[in-house]
Amino acid sequence: MLNFRNDYSAGAHPAVLEALCRTNMELTAGYGTDPYCQAAADQIRSLCGQPEAAVHFLVGGTQANKTAIAAFLRPYEAVVAASTAHICVHETGAVEQDGHKIIHLPTPDGKLTPELLRAAAAAHTGEHMVAPRLAYISNTTELGTVYSREELRALRTACDELGLYLYCDGARLGSAMDAGGTDFASYGETCDAFTIGGTKNGLLFGEALVIVQPGLQPGFRHCMKQQGAILAKGRLLGVQFDAILHGGLYLSLAAHANALARQLTAGLEALGVPLLADSPSNQVFPILPDGVAAALEAQCAFEVQERLEGGRTCVRFVTAWDTQEGDVEALLSVLRGLLGQCS
Amino acid sequence: MLNFRNDYSAGAHPAVLEALCRTNMELTAGYGTDPYCQAAADQIRSLCGQPEAAVHFLVGGTQANKTAIAAFLRPYEAVVAASTAHICVHETGAVEQDGHKIIHLPTPDGKLTPELLRAAAAAHTGEHMVAPRLAYISNTTELGTVYSREELRALRTACDELGLYLYCDGARLGSAMDAGGTDFASYGETCDAFTIGGTKNGLLFGEALVIVQPGLQPGFRHCMKQQGAILAKGRLLGVQFDAILHGGLYLSLAAHANALARQLTAGLEALGVPLLADSPSNQVFPILPDGVAAALEAQCAFEVQERLEGGRTCVRFVTAWDTQEGDVEALLSVLRGLLGQCS
Amino acid sequence: MLNFRNDYSAGAHPAVLEALCRTNMELTAGYGTDPYCQAAADQIRSLCGQPEAAVHFLVGGTQANKTAIAAFLRPYEAVVAASTAHICVHETGAVEQDGHKIIHLPTPDGKLTPELLRAAAAAHTGEHMVAPRLAYISNTTELGTVYSREELRALRTACDELGLYLYCDGARLGSAMDAGGTDFASYGETCDAFTIGGTKNGLLFGEALVIVQPGLQPGFRHCMKQQGAILAKGRLLGVQFDAILHGGLYLSLAAHANALARQLTAGLEALGVPLLADSPSNQVFPILPDGVAAALEAQCAFEVQERLEGGRTCVRFVTAWDTQEGDVEALLSVLRGLLGQCS
Amino acid sequence: MLNFRNDYSAGAHPAVLEALCRTNMELTAGYGTDPYCQAAADQIRSLCGQPEAAVHFLVGGTQANKTAIAAFLRPYEAVVAASTAHICVHETGAVEQDGHKIIHLPTPDGKLTPELLRAAAAAHTGEHMVAPRLAYISNTTELGTVYSREELRALRTACDELGLYLYCDGARLGSAMDAGGTDFASYGETCDAFTIGGTKNGLLFGEALVIVQPGLQPGFRHCMKQQGAILAKGRLLGVQFDAILHGGLYLSLAAHANALARQLTAGLEALGVPLLADSPSNQVFPILPDGVAAALEAQCAFEVQERLEGGRTCVRFVTAWDTQEGDVEALLSVLRGLLGQCS
Repeated sequence: MLNFRNDYSAGAHPAVLEALCRTNMELTAGYGTDPYCQAAADQIRSLCGQPEAAVHFLVGGTQANKTAIAAFLRPYEAVVAASTAHICVHETGAVEQDGHKIIHLPTPDGKLTPELLRAAAAAHTGEHMVAPRLAYISNTTELGTVYSREELRALRTACDELGLYLYCDGARLGSAMDAGGTDFASYGETCDAFTIGGTKNGLLFGEALVIVQPGLQPGFRHCMKQQGAILAKGRLLGVQFDAILHGGLYLSLAAHANALARQLTAGLEALGVPLLADSPSNQVFPILPDGVAAALEAQCAFEVQERLEGGRTCVRFVTAWDTQEGDVEALLSVLRGLLGQCS
Repeated sequence: MLNFRNDYSAGAHPAVLEALCRTNMELTAGYGTDPYCQAAADQIRSLCGQPEAAVHFLVGGTQANKTAIAAFLRPYEAVVAASTAHICVHETGAVEQDGHKIIHLPTPDGKLTPELLRAAAAAHTGEHMVAPRLAYISNTTELGTVYSREELRALRTACDELGLYLYCDGARLGSAMDAGGTDFASYGETCDAFTIGGTKNGLLFGEALVIVQPGLQPGFRHCMKQQGAILAKGRLLGVQFDAILHGGLYLSLAAHANALARQLTAGLEALGVPLLADSPSNQVFPILPDGVAAALEAQCAFEVQERLEGGRTCVRFVTAWDTQEGDVEALLSVLRGLLGQCS
Repeated sequence: MLNFRNDYSAGAHPAVLEALCRTNMELTAGYGTDPYCQAAADQIRSLCGQPEAAVHFLVGGTQANKTAIAAFLRPYEAVVAASTAHICVHETGAVEQDGHKIIHLPTPDGKLTPELLRAAAAAHTGEHMVAPRLAYISNTTELGTVYSREELRALRTACDELGLYLYCDGARLGSAMDAGGTDFASYGETCDAFTIGGTKNGLLFGEALVIVQPGLQPGFRHCMKQQGAILAKGRLLGVQFDAILHGGLYLSLAAHANALARQLTAGLEALGVPLLADSPSNQVFPILPDGVAAALEAQCAFEVQERLEGGRTCVRFVTAWDTQEGDVEALLSVLRGLLGQCS
Repeated sequence: MLNFRNDYSAGAHPAVLEALCRTNMELTAGYGTDPYCQAAADQIRSLCGQPEAAVHFLVGGTQANKTAIAAFLRPYEAVVAASTAHICVHETGAVEQDGHKIIHLPTPDGKLTPELLRAAAAAHTGEHMVAPRLAYISNTTELGTVYSREELRALRTACDELGLYLYCDGARLGSAMDAGGTDFASYGETCDAFTIGGTKNGLLFGEALVIVQPGLQPGFRHCMKQQGAILAKGRLLGVQFDAILHGGLYLSLAAHANALARQLTAGLEALGVPLLADSPSNQVFPILPDGVAAALEAQCAFEVQERLEGGRTCVRFVTAWDTQEGDVEALLSVLRGLLGQCS
């Protein structure tokens, strides 16, 4: 059975697993105050070019988004996000559970723009409305699209103008950096806070939250604990991040997944399969005849993104650090066969 | 200065004020457990044909919506509403503050339909998404449109099918009943809960919340107190509702406001002024040239609804129980003059 | 039937009611932005000697406490209060509903002290515990006791030392000022925020919240609206406060209630009835034999404070602005009779 | 350096680590819907004798407590707990953050009793107070004490009588079962819900939440996701629990820790050191002269529980699955020396 279902089921990269095994019996201080977390945080500060940034390690992405937003905003302040954003659709109202409205902005490609931010700000005036205060972007987006450095800078400028924090959900930050020509410093420079996702790129679990903006740093560990978001054996997060960031492994794993996704995209285009979005990253969204999508399920694990009109189904294929080149070829071969039968 | 700004600034109807003055020095039980609240609740149960309904009196509309929704839903359950709904736009995220997402549905006329409800339900599956659980409608809507009895029944059927509660925000329920051919029993029959708005129709303040669905009744007074929504001298609400419901006064005040709004609408149409929505109720939304709207401000209080393209402004005129026929004539006369100058 | 049950059931003072009737048909701006609210706020700023204070008018005390605390604190910050405090016992967890823990401190007399604050602060360290951030006092307390100006100043000093806000719930502030030798300026000088209660001292309803601390002022109207705590016909609050503050009426009504309570206390002491607390304000807590308390119910409305050991019941008698001297005499006479029968 | 600081820093037991390594590259369904979670849940249902119980796996204890309580209660419902309970003191107000008050009950030994529950219920009446609805116990308690099966049954009876849910925080359930003569079935029989703690007994992380009460089961995964409490690679929890429960390993690790704690206790008693509480479990609370406690820090990691009067310090020694008998002997030897110097 081929597997292009997601990038969070793959296990830990061998180097990460080895580090966990090697340190298993060490007794360190708990709750993320250990030397491994310290070392990983130092690596991150250095990579981002932000020596004063606060770095916290959390277990998962919803937890990181939720904890950060709850910590950063006053009760009546709202989040602005693309309507396809993870926090809008796939986090069961986690942000609202902590009291904050998310203003959903329809976009064609899952990306916020300065114009969208300005329009949202202009539409919210006076005390009978929530006050937009934080722009949430995900990079890569939920449609596989990517922000460039110039786009990040333009958002930063708009946020400064409008009094908004800029927050980047980097659950797939490695893929975004590889595909979009950004680096860690791009986020350190433009975002008030952002996450570096480990769960989808070589770790068992773990997201690093980098808080660049000094005004957002105080009290954050209190907020983490209140959200149940401090891991007792916190070193597990430091050990993993320390290992994956070592020697550029994090980026090379993401580059591998992206390269295979591009190979898949090229193959799909050669087969004449249209794509939902122009994704340069590790998620590919081909639009298949319903019959092909149905038949594919017997040979490959994947997710249905959306049922479309005209007997078509948009599916999602995801590559990961452990995807093999042969898997991509095999998938294309299967699709070639199914499309031939359908035509 | 003419005043068509809103319907909540008008004072209490003389009969209501008289009742308040007459009972001022009576010492009754507090917190809404007095005979006046009891009598008003009995009147409401009788008018609605729901002898087992729970009736609670709250001071304001946002408070009533917020308290009801917080009491009715479990943490992950969501509200479905038209994107123009009061709870979506003008309550500063009050529903989200209590932890619940509102799913905003774009509509042309501010009204939910069974189709919209079905689509919203179909789009929310699995535990990574909120679970739609309560359909919020306002009647009249924020655009002045109105639900008929048949439309309410169709929504009820859809809600039963989808496992949704049907909640009607009746801040202008009198106007809705007069304009839409519904009566109190229409709501008792179709809604799980609804409010009867007093603030905009003859009271100093006050909304009656009618909870028809027995499963939603337990613990509601605890929820009210927790929200700061039990008035110490609770009798003030009972006294006012008792007076306004007596002898059909509530409906006749609403009918008066509606009649003047229709007169205004007819006059506007005679002047060739287009309207944003086809409102049969006490809110009228004419679209004026920007210059006319600006010039009008010197002679009449009103609100700007929306700036439109092409140098046009949509304004809102609201009639109330205290609006005079002469005021309508005067407004039309002023507009006639301004439009003549502009053309 | 005599009535010493509470001080919130009494109607509006005639001067207040007259002002409401006189202004009933005026059309003013809504939501508390009218000239009456402006005038009342100006009076309060002047009385407090705090020309830069923000003044907001809310309908009830729980609403005021809840809205203020939710607006002032970050998620992990906690309130410190006497375990008898209104917010601890009688507000159905309203503060917790907005996410904040209250640290309950047992006290003999319902009053916080610098020592108690210091001990609470010392007991809360590190991110696994909430961070005490706001000291809540009520004046008068729930046991009728009162803070002097010196005590307020000592609390202020301790709060400065510990990084706490000082918040005073003044639901009975008139009584507290009369009994404790404080004036409005005492609170302006020592508190970061405090309320001036109207509901229990001559108004139909209404609490004025005075926010002295500039850092706590921004965004407060957003928070009010989000809590459902902005009254549509907001002028009703301004009109009432403007009337009751005029010419010292507020204080004279409180002084009347206190004087009658002292008369009652003197009579009780003459009858040999012990008191739960040494209350100089308008609440008196005599300890009666169970039989006397039970028999009294037929002739006087009052509340039971607490069942005590040894067949005794502590009851609460409350005087109000409308209590008559004859009522006190009548109550004492009834008690004299009942106690005689019991002995 | 000796280490008796805590039981959550020890790494995974070799059998657990081996299982994680062996399954690392398997691709399973995400979010806890995999066969390993299924198998572990089946083991737990079988051990508890509750074939219909719902079993969920969460990463940490605060997260488990917080998610369960938020899911189980309506807004105004409160938790009753010993004032030393973890949720009262060491979870940064996590329960309150979700809107629920905890009623703190002082106890000598950290244990709730039927009498305490009845008194708490009796003290909360009417809608101005929160409604107690869930009794939270921890077993072992934060003082190392333990509930017997009879005590659990007596609490169950009281909860039935009072309309309370009984929830047991089993962060140290293995230790509690070994020390108190209970087994998994004891909790299945008496509790509405309880946790089986893995973090402190051989796992990298993980708590299993068992929901016995059918009425509390629906919607729980939605609540977990909303709290950020569903792990993407959910199988990590299933794999670990499956391994630790296999062949009674969970209980034997706990028995080992308890045995060493008893050895330590016996040694302390032989040295004449008094103990704060009579703990039969893996936490020991000796009371040492301040000088001894201070000097000990150079040779042993431990936590200070409380500074006491009279120059004494209560410290906490914790044994874990990886503590060696020699460590206990070494600690006793060090203490013997320090006590000799002090006397």
